[in-house]
Amino acid sequence: MPELLTPLSANRAAGGWQHRFAHRSAVLDCDMKFAVYLPPQATAHHKVPVLYWLSGLTCTEENFIQKAGAQRMAAQLGLAIVCPDTSPRGDDVANDPGYDLGQGAGFYLNATQAPWAAHYRMHDYVVHELPALVEAELPILPVRGIAGHSMGGHGALTLALRNPGRYQSISAFAPICHPSATPWGQKAFRAYLGDHPDAWREWDASLLLAQARDPVPTLVDQGDADEFLARELQPEALENAARSAGYPLTLRRHAGYDHSYYFIASLIDEHLQHHARALIK
Amino acid sequence: MPELLTPLSANRAAGGWQHRFAHRSAVLDCDMKFAVYLPPQATAHHKVPVLYWLSGLTCTEENFIQKAGAQRMAAQLGLAIVCPDTSPRGDDVANDPGYDLGQGAGFYLNATQAPWAAHYRMHDYVVHELPALVEAELPILPVRGIAGHSMGGHGALTLALRNPGRYQSISAFAPICHPSATPWGQKAFRAYLGDHPDAWREWDASLLLAQARDPVPTLVDQGDADEFLARELQPEALENAARSAGYPLTLRRHAGYDHSYYFIASLIDEHLQHHARALIK
Repeated sequence: MPELLTPLSANRAAGGWQHRFAHRSAVLDCDMKFAVYLPPQATAHHKVPVLYWLSGLTCTEENFIQKAGAQRMAAQLGLAIVCPDTSPRGDDVANDPGYDLGQGAGFYLNATQAPWAAHYRMHDYVVHELPALVEAELPILPVRGIAGHSMGGHGALTLALRNPGRYQSISAFAPICHPSATPWGQKAFRAYLGDHPDAWREWDASLLLAQARDPVPTLVDQGDADEFLARELQPEALENAARSAGYPLTLRRHAGYDHSYYFIASLIDEHLQHHARALIK
Repeated sequence: MPELLTPLSANRAAGGWQHRFAHRSAVLDCDMKFAVYLPPQATAHHKVPVLYWLSGLTCTEENFIQKAGAQRMAAQLGLAIVCPDTSPRGDDVANDPGYDLGQGAGFYLNATQAPWAAHYRMHDYVVHELPALVEAELPILPVRGIAGHSMGGHGALTLALRNPGRYQSISAFAPICHPSATPWGQKAFRAYLGDHPDAWREWDASLLLAQARDPVPTLVDQGDADEFLARELQPEALENAARSAGYPLTLRRHAGYDHSYYFIASLIDEHLQHHARALIK
């Protein structure tokens, strides 16, 4: 039987191991890479809960593991962190010259429109295929939190809200909160989902949260100097939906912080602690 | 009067600010960039001690600030961190096709040989010109520690050992400990200093440390899975010199760690605490 995971790199980090693997994705019909941090508590005889981290536009599986400084707290808490890529990849995968559509910009949804529908099924990949793989091949429990940044914050919120019971905790940095009403989201939704408002509603965190029936503790941090705040992110839409629905959202605004990884690195420990409270009993 | 510092970027980080600046270096006779983290304690009315961080081969002023995750502990301690580039830069600055000589590989020395001597004076730049600039223009005290990685670890050790009284604390990750006897160092020394063994001795940490008269608390961390350990780094030379000289060196070996920034990020907090013990009273 061929190995399912091809090791790309392994670096000791904070007492555990930062791995990168390649594998064949049946769902996406292409070769994919992902990163996983295994804390020292994860051994052949002991599995650990896991946080899925979804990155933003233009990122790969490497940005978070290099820039967030998350490994030390993950090691303290005993949390694994799985970081998928941000889209299907490869020469035969549809692409677009813009940074905000196509490869590097999968928006964590299942595309229905040509030429995207052939490979762009990041929802199914992140929610089903990748967890099944890492839970079978690595010392990782089916006890899952989900987090992300910007497009990945949209991903974390929508994937959790669409799949009640699958994630015990949610967090996001500077998420795209209302993509059906903002430019990045509209461009992506028009391409991937077509001009179908009903389809767009199914991938919009603020609209999904207004109808959520299975509340999960949700932490969102937003910098008030974020260059994309008003045009692309619109956290007030999420806040209003949570208020109407009585949803357990904690949304914090932080003076002076921008959209960069410096913001993430400044607060990642608090996000990991937020997830650990739900995932580690 | 023209501004001495041209702001390149400023990102709020861990309650302080991660800055990058450009400036004209008279010593190097070229335009240079550097990064400085100012913790929240640094204000117009309150200056803070400073750690100089020297990066390794191929790096710029950006690697450490993006990958080490140092800002949170620096903010807690109230330490500024200044990160110079690793060589003079520019189209009219001598270069070499190899990654281990020329731009990105200044070795923190003053070159004496053509064509390098015209610009390659990183010792004088890091020890004198850059501190004078940041202490005049930013809320930074003349209370200095120095640290670095690989070629920058060599730099931290040699600059401190050559300049008694100028640095109150030293640390290094995986430093080149005995460059006059190892390939990277020999290639650089031959080019920058010529075939003059007496000149090489003046830039070799193990040889300098054997004769040090002004001991400074020195912490060195080395991974035992470092791919450059035996060929390029030779920490045992530094250890032997310290033992003979009775020098206060703490050299720790860490199982499984390699030469990457994951090693630095895993232990940077302990290095910052080491410096703070000497710099913050």
